[in-house]
Amino acid sequence: MKLLVPIILGSDKDGEFGKKIKNRLSFFGVDSIIRVCSAHKSCLNLLKIIKEYEDDDNVKTMITIAGKSNALSALVDGNSAKPIISCPPLSDVTMHDLYSSVSMPSGVAPLTVLGYENAAISASKICSLFEKC
Amino acid sequence: MKLLVPIILGSDKDGEFGKKIKNRLSFFGVDSIIRVCSAHKSCLNLLKIIKEYEDDDNVKTMITIAGKSNALSALVDGNSAKPIISCPPLSDVTMHDLYSSVSMPSGVAPLTVLGYENAAISASKICSLFEKC
Amino acid sequence: MKLLVPIILGSDKDGEFGKKIKNRLSFFGVDSIIRVCSAHKSCLNLLKIIKEYEDDDNVKTMITIAGKSNALSALVDGNSAKPIISCPPLSDVTMHDLYSSVSMPSGVAPLTVLGYENAAISASKICSLFEKC
Amino acid sequence: MKLLVPIILGSDKDGEFGKKIKNRLSFFGVDSIIRVCSAHKSCLNLLKIIKEYEDDDNVKTMITIAGKSNALSALVDGNSAKPIISCPPLSDVTMHDLYSSVSMPSGVAPLTVLGYENAAISASKICSLFEKC
Amino acid sequence: MKLLVPIILGSDKDGEFGKKIKNRLSFFGVDSIIRVCSAHKSCLNLLKIIKEYEDDDNVKTMITIAGKSNALSALVDGNSAKPIISCPPLSDVTMHDLYSSVSMPSGVAPLTVLGYENAAISASKICSLFEKC
Amino acid sequence: MKLLVPIILGSDKDGEFGKKIKNRLSFFGVDSIIRVCSAHKSCLNLLKIIKEYEDDDNVKTMITIAGKSNALSALVDGNSAKPIISCPPLSDVTMHDLYSSVSMPSGVAPLTVLGYENAAISASKICSLFEKC
Amino acid sequence: MKLLVPIILGSDKDGEFGKKIKNRLSFFGVDSIIRVCSAHKSCLNLLKIIKEYEDDDNVKTMITIAGKSNALSALVDGNSAKPIISCPPLSDVTMHDLYSSVSMPSGVAPLTVLGYENAAISASKICSLFEKC
Amino acid sequence: MKLLVPIILGSDKDGEFGKKIKNRLSFFGVDSIIRVCSAHKSCLNLLKIIKEYEDDDNVKTMITIAGKSNALSALVDGNSAKPIISCPPLSDVTMHDLYSSVSMPSGVAPLTVLGYENAAISASKICSLFEKC
Repeated sequence: MKLLVPIILGSDKDGEFGKKIKNRLSFFGVDSIIRVCSAHKSCLNLLKIIKEYEDDDNVKTMITIAGKSNALSALVDGNSAKPIISCPPLSDVTMHDLYSSVSMPSGVAPLTVLGYENAAISASKICSLFEKC
Repeated sequence: MKLLVPIILGSDKDGEFGKKIKNRLSFFGVDSIIRVCSAHKSCLNLLKIIKEYEDDDNVKTMITIAGKSNALSALVDGNSAKPIISCPPLSDVTMHDLYSSVSMPSGVAPLTVLGYENAAISASKICSLFEKC
Repeated sequence: MKLLVPIILGSDKDGEFGKKIKNRLSFFGVDSIIRVCSAHKSCLNLLKIIKEYEDDDNVKTMITIAGKSNALSALVDGNSAKPIISCPPLSDVTMHDLYSSVSMPSGVAPLTVLGYENAAISASKICSLFEKC
Repeated sequence: MKLLVPIILGSDKDGEFGKKIKNRLSFFGVDSIIRVCSAHKSCLNLLKIIKEYEDDDNVKTMITIAGKSNALSALVDGNSAKPIISCPPLSDVTMHDLYSSVSMPSGVAPLTVLGYENAAISASKICSLFEKC
Repeated sequence: MKLLVPIILGSDKDGEFGKKIKNRLSFFGVDSIIRVCSAHKSCLNLLKIIKEYEDDDNVKTMITIAGKSNALSALVDGNSAKPIISCPPLSDVTMHDLYSSVSMPSGVAPLTVLGYENAAISASKICSLFEKC
Repeated sequence: MKLLVPIILGSDKDGEFGKKIKNRLSFFGVDSIIRVCSAHKSCLNLLKIIKEYEDDDNVKTMITIAGKSNALSALVDGNSAKPIISCPPLSDVTMHDLYSSVSMPSGVAPLTVLGYENAAISASKICSLFEKC
Repeated sequence: MKLLVPIILGSDKDGEFGKKIKNRLSFFGVDSIIRVCSAHKSCLNLLKIIKEYEDDDNVKTMITIAGKSNALSALVDGNSAKPIISCPPLSDVTMHDLYSSVSMPSGVAPLTVLGYENAAISASKICSLFEKC
Repeated sequence: MKLLVPIILGSDKDGEFGKKIKNRLSFFGVDSIIRVCSAHKSCLNLLKIIKEYEDDDNVKTMITIAGKSNALSALVDGNSAKPIISCPPLSDVTMHDLYSSVSMPSGVAPLTVLGYENAAISASKICSLFEKC
């Protein structure tokens, strides 16, 4: 079994941030793939991407990256049975955008972590649960 | 021409708030209809609702109501060519959720207004532009 | 019918911001005109400007631009039957000024959107409602 | 010379707050009068009220009371040569509205103080400067 | 294989909150156990608790519950190879405590989610990854 | 009668800010003098400075300048019968220090204004009340 | 040697809070005395109180209690060679007043702790350093 | 008796900040030693360090330095009978991390002070209590 962690970006503006996560995952020995899809503008496409990974047993978790109002993480989580790691690329002066990542209604439960390295660690931890399986 | 303002709620928990908007619109002589659909969980259904009103010339604007992280307003706006009025039902102590309504990427432009009466006024103003048409 | 979107600035310090909106509107094929008038200091003049556009059927909406305490958008809205798009030129570190744009009493309902492109999109959406009229 | 302190309210919702200031001023031996006028909706009327007191040598200062987005204090200050005391009726959970009172452009300089008693003290201090005149 | 989700509370003051999570997990068919241990005062004991579950293959994730300054979640995560779900029991007026849950140095990566139901959902999602194993 | 506006700085770190106020007052034809005295460390000296100006009929108001926790303005106001203009030299990222200027107990009523020009305007307005005396 | 911890209140409004600290100190076997003195209004008196305890070798630390803008703690610290424990009686909705306690210039260093019990613990810890002396 | 102030850093990233405190303490004639230990990752080691200084009568207080979520200061305080001075190395734009230093449960009472000089002054004040012992 070769696990894969999809890293879904809401915009290619966050491409560098996504690559840093990918590099850290690679350093931890975890394969990943970067996908770009706006939840706001292309939710049909997003649903297809989610479906693709829902059906893939090698995908145990997905990382979602969206700055500003974070609809992406909520939509991915709301349409996936797998645990979703939301890593909004916030800086100190955009910390007010954090609320859009954590202020979720009951039933929508993306898991928030800040920092590209910590996002990679979280995903690696989930993947490493399967080493003995 | 009989204009109609769809009021889209992300959750029926905001039903009372939606009815207040509907009542004010009625007071202003504007017809409205309340729809409930979660952007997080049912975006396919949301797209259908949007499409229904995109194709309806009697609909000039829609009002979107979502507390907590406001994905609904962004999705409706991102999938509609019509101006969208976003009215998050915030209280003084949930004002931090405001950022999820206004912190939008370029290209996603819901219009934010607070208070049920002001939402109704805004929609009425757009409708009244057509009285002379 | 040739639509026109007045862009009203509270101060010529925001001239560059206003021009960016004008350029985007032009890109969308919408004519616009920039006016500068302080609500705080010249409200009589502001009322004249509003009146001029109230009486002009080619004006369907106005965009108001005021940083710091945003009295301009509220005064324009309070004196116009047309929908007003308020686009305060905020940066991440002046986000606390957002409240002066959205914290309105009942009956005063400017519509807030952030970012010059999003202001232009909003106004264009309102204008495009009249393409079929 | 019998000094008078006009207390201008943006809304009669703040009538109780205005009366508390009036009572404190009375306790300090200072006459006052309560006026109600919305800056957002009735700025022509507001200009008349301001003019009336600008021309009255018995008026040395005015107190302005407006919750939510405080356009009133800025407009009164911007149209008066007299020092204006702005006392927004804030509570702990509406403290975010404070910024609309203090975030002023150069040239608009209302003086902010919180609490009805402190507003009365401030106005009394200005009036007491004239006891020896 | 009978999975178990330890719910670690920093204080028995959060006992009711912990029980709500336990009840939701039970509703989802997931076994859980509540443990109480202060990170601030009893970190040796906390390390023992963590070790106990590190060595237990039936434990795939742990939920940590700590209000105020959240050291518990960071310590559990920093000493566990398993993904940790941090669910600080915040209310609207204690939202400033959120930063102690998400502002982590590189290498410490608890996953934050708000609301007892969402914590239970997150843990259930991780557990359900093992249904096919 | 030659009026004088004392500008009291809590620290000579704010010397440049104080000079800007002095220059604007000079531009408005108002004499001023800069004094430096820490309320935290030298309150006896501060009381002497206040007393000096309390007894000087040419002083109608004082401007106080203190960044960080603003004890200076409160102490000057608490020990003076004259209206005190508090102008904390805040920037966008130190705006949290504003609360120390406005959060006063009943009976302590310094008047807050932001920006060196606005501080000068406020003081000039108070001085100009005496032109006809 | 019989140690004594002065608890200085800025206002008798905080009398209950002061008594809770006194009770906790008593429970820890530490004598204390409550004094009430406004830094804003009675700083001469405050200096006398400070001097009284500066000269008393049985006083190793003082606790200062002031809500709203906390000048008291800074003045006590600025005029004492002993470590000062500042315990502003904040609630969740007055947390913005915290900045007036911690935003101090270099050279003024009151030590902030929240909660009456924690204030008592801190003072007790300092006192217990002298048990072996 | 030669007093010693341990300065405990959560990470060597704050080494420069720690050295500034050490230099100021040296200027005040107080010996100090810098130790680095993560509370999140190495709490066993941290307990050893604390124990070492608990048993050392020349140590009257410790200074703890941790940015982001400040578990270090709480753990040191929770495991020491001596007064602990917590000096989180915050800047204006990371001020939201302050809450993790002051929002403590009853029984955990580190004393917060901002700025390297003020941390050194506080520790010096505690040390100077022993000059007469």
